[in-house]
Amino acid sequence: MTQKATIIGGGVIGGGWVARFLLNGWNVSVFDPDTEAERKIGEVLANARRALPALYDKALPAEGTLTFHDDMGEALAGAAWVQESVPERLDLKHKIHAQIDELSPADAVIGSSTSGFKPSELNAHGGRVVVAHPFNPVYLLPLVELVGEADTCAKASDILRSIGMYPLTVRKEIDAHIADRFLEAVWREALWLVKDGVATTEEIDEAIRMGFGIRWAQMGLFETYRVAGGEAGMKHFMAQFGPALQWPWTKLMDVPEFTDELVDLIAGQSDAQSGHMSIRELERLRDDNLIGMMRALKKTGSGAGGVLNAHEAMLPDPEGDDLPITVDRVIPQSWTDYNGHMNEAHYIEVSAQATDSFMLMIDADADYIAAGNSYFTVENFVQYHAELHAGDRLTVTTQVLRGEGKKMHLFHRLHGPDGEVAATVETLLLHMDLNARKTSLPTEGVAAKLTAFAEDHARLPTPQGAGRHVGQRG
Amino acid sequence: MTQKATIIGGGVIGGGWVARFLLNGWNVSVFDPDTEAERKIGEVLANARRALPALYDKALPAEGTLTFHDDMGEALAGAAWVQESVPERLDLKHKIHAQIDELSPADAVIGSSTSGFKPSELNAHGGRVVVAHPFNPVYLLPLVELVGEADTCAKASDILRSIGMYPLTVRKEIDAHIADRFLEAVWREALWLVKDGVATTEEIDEAIRMGFGIRWAQMGLFETYRVAGGEAGMKHFMAQFGPALQWPWTKLMDVPEFTDELVDLIAGQSDAQSGHMSIRELERLRDDNLIGMMRALKKTGSGAGGVLNAHEAMLPDPEGDDLPITVDRVIPQSWTDYNGHMNEAHYIEVSAQATDSFMLMIDADADYIAAGNSYFTVENFVQYHAELHAGDRLTVTTQVLRGEGKKMHLFHRLHGPDGEVAATVETLLLHMDLNARKTSLPTEGVAAKLTAFAEDHARLPTPQGAGRHVGQRG
Repeated sequence: MTQKATIIGGGVIGGGWVARFLLNGWNVSVFDPDTEAERKIGEVLANARRALPALYDKALPAEGTLTFHDDMGEALAGAAWVQESVPERLDLKHKIHAQIDELSPADAVIGSSTSGFKPSELNAHGGRVVVAHPFNPVYLLPLVELVGEADTCAKASDILRSIGMYPLTVRKEIDAHIADRFLEAVWREALWLVKDGVATTEEIDEAIRMGFGIRWAQMGLFETYRVAGGEAGMKHFMAQFGPALQWPWTKLMDVPEFTDELVDLIAGQSDAQSGHMSIRELERLRDDNLIGMMRALKKTGSGAGGVLNAHEAMLPDPEGDDLPITVDRVIPQSWTDYNGHMNEAHYIEVSAQATDSFMLMIDADADYIAAGNSYFTVENFVQYHAELHAGDRLTVTTQVLRGEGKKMHLFHRLHGPDGEVAATVETLLLHMDLNARKTSLPTEGVAAKLTAFAEDHARLPTPQGAGRHVGQRG
Repeated sequence: MTQKATIIGGGVIGGGWVARFLLNGWNVSVFDPDTEAERKIGEVLANARRALPALYDKALPAEGTLTFHDDMGEALAGAAWVQESVPERLDLKHKIHAQIDELSPADAVIGSSTSGFKPSELNAHGGRVVVAHPFNPVYLLPLVELVGEADTCAKASDILRSIGMYPLTVRKEIDAHIADRFLEAVWREALWLVKDGVATTEEIDEAIRMGFGIRWAQMGLFETYRVAGGEAGMKHFMAQFGPALQWPWTKLMDVPEFTDELVDLIAGQSDAQSGHMSIRELERLRDDNLIGMMRALKKTGSGAGGVLNAHEAMLPDPEGDDLPITVDRVIPQSWTDYNGHMNEAHYIEVSAQATDSFMLMIDADADYIAAGNSYFTVENFVQYHAELHAGDRLTVTTQVLRGEGKKMHLFHRLHGPDGEVAATVETLLLHMDLNARKTSLPTEGVAAKLTAFAEDHARLPTPQGAGRHVGQRG
């Protein structure tokens, strides 16, 4: 049965939660007295629909249903997850959580997006709220800091993983949890540097993203230092770096006065840095960069890439009526080129995915490959019939033209969003002994499965032109 | 003439500088009394040779010559850049820089890799050193903080850009420059969190890389907040976030005592986190991740991606004797698959690059496309003859089989590292009106250039089998 999440408080963070749940197939109800809530959430959703599916090489579940409510009880009925993202005022949070506690199902997880308050503060008058602190953009970044009662955090973790997030349960409650303590430390130091005229906002951003930012994106702080310490190890590194703690380097002991002049200085520098781009343009640039980097991390499974791989493995495989569906996915922005459509290379990337899926169907899987067996492509013939665009849903059906001996001859049809055949890829593969790097026969099990598909598909007409191009002597 | 850089002091940072200069075609001489210097630099170089070329879609210049010297004067003779990376002791730096000053060419740039000392400290007894502070791994990360005399910094900037780095000239000298002030602030806070049992080293790394780390890698701090502030702008954001400066969040006002217990706690947690991997394995994982993310940023030109694009544009285009060379590059690790060789899709990525290069040769360039003209691929026929591997140099020659009317029929040969034909791609393109999305005739200028190539290539034999597969009615 479709599950339901209730989002109390829209805005950028609440809207991000709406998108996370909705695009992962949950029904979502929203309560927010702001008359602009529907518009604001709609804008976040538009970004999310463009971005989130592009992270995956499989289609996400069908979207759930989104509803807006004026009555909190109605919004909360039947919810399995309630997320509060109202402004950071403790009196307001207390008032809202008293209502949520009364009106929500007894077994619902109740999370607060607070970046500053501790569970003991939120639950000062009783209650069962846990902190579930996400990071903007909530629809792309995996991290959620969980703080609170252990059983609830464990239950919350399972749900968060199922919507592609990374729950990090904090061992002790503490002001600002973990990540925001670092952000706060850096923010203070940055304000001093701008105020003292050492660097502009743009120069500080470059100092971060051209160096340690890109380092931290994949390993974090300690692992980076472990590697920097080299073979001598972490103790050696700390022996070198430790004493620097005593050096009079930072201005951390003091807080810059938050004057209008400082605000104007920073706002002015920020305008000079990127005032030529609208916030919407900046958001899309940010999202395209995040998607590109997170997709890159999928290759190694590091950090956010590992979260994506785990989530993708949970997504259901599509089933075909007639021919097997070997790919069902959405086209990411990064696959398009200067002609404004999917670049020719990615048609082959998709057909290679289709071949990989088909290999799984005949048990030529990871174990089979680890045992030294595989198929190598020797020829591909691609016919491009229609343009495909970023965001398009793309499905591939695979027909076996021939499957005997060393040969596996496949015909992939790439179907665009309206079901039309956007391209065909005729592909000839030979079975290989990976150790000898020579052709060989498949195992009996694989051969039998391949033959069964070939015999079944023999009832279908041969695609026009197939077999004439591929697999012939030159 | 080949330029020369002298590296004083090997190790991880000095070795990184060696690799940066050497792989960008400079000759490099090293002075380091450590008897292990040659081995240590060799290890960094092995990593760099595997990693740096993978960032680019063009080949880097031929490597320069690397020499090791026992005599500092010999090492310094003829150097255009001298980089000192000796341990962070001011007396040692003074001694070394007195010698460099005496023995190096008068017009050489003299840089120090120091993370802590200011130019006024380094030059306390006279001298012309500027701080040129890089980030590990020096062969991949672009950032170099430059501090010192303005003319020298300007000259240094030009050289650093020519070897693919991003010079950031700091406006005022200050302890620890810019980036290390942030690193120090975060390091202190992280030590408290571990010491107080709030989080382990691994949890802290996840809190960084699953959230703000990946955000900072592409936009830095202020730009991220600008976007978070939304349409209300930077002032609105600061009005919200500013007051938090006064909150008692961080332990920054105090420094944790650097006891053996704390060192053991952190080293032990770090071992638990990744003791199953050797430092060499971690380095390669880090490098693969950095390459993948930096290549992703090339698509949008953000941050490190913009630096790569600018550097790539400076690299010379190859020239063919007979057929034009349309691609000359190295195969990145991320292009390989579970079969241990370049995945079939990237053969088309390379042939698409070859087609793009050839289009430039007939003036079908960015302006031409902006004016609404382009070529679309309608068919590709790929024959895979030999495996290609990560790190292999790959060149493509392009033969025009036919170029008349709307048609451009090309035959790309992909040559592996020994010159052998590893694959061929026969490709048929049609000229398009990008506004109408319909076929059209090329402009006279483009048509004339294409015809000239076609007529010149008509003297060559038609490749075996070409024209039979592609461009025929099914």
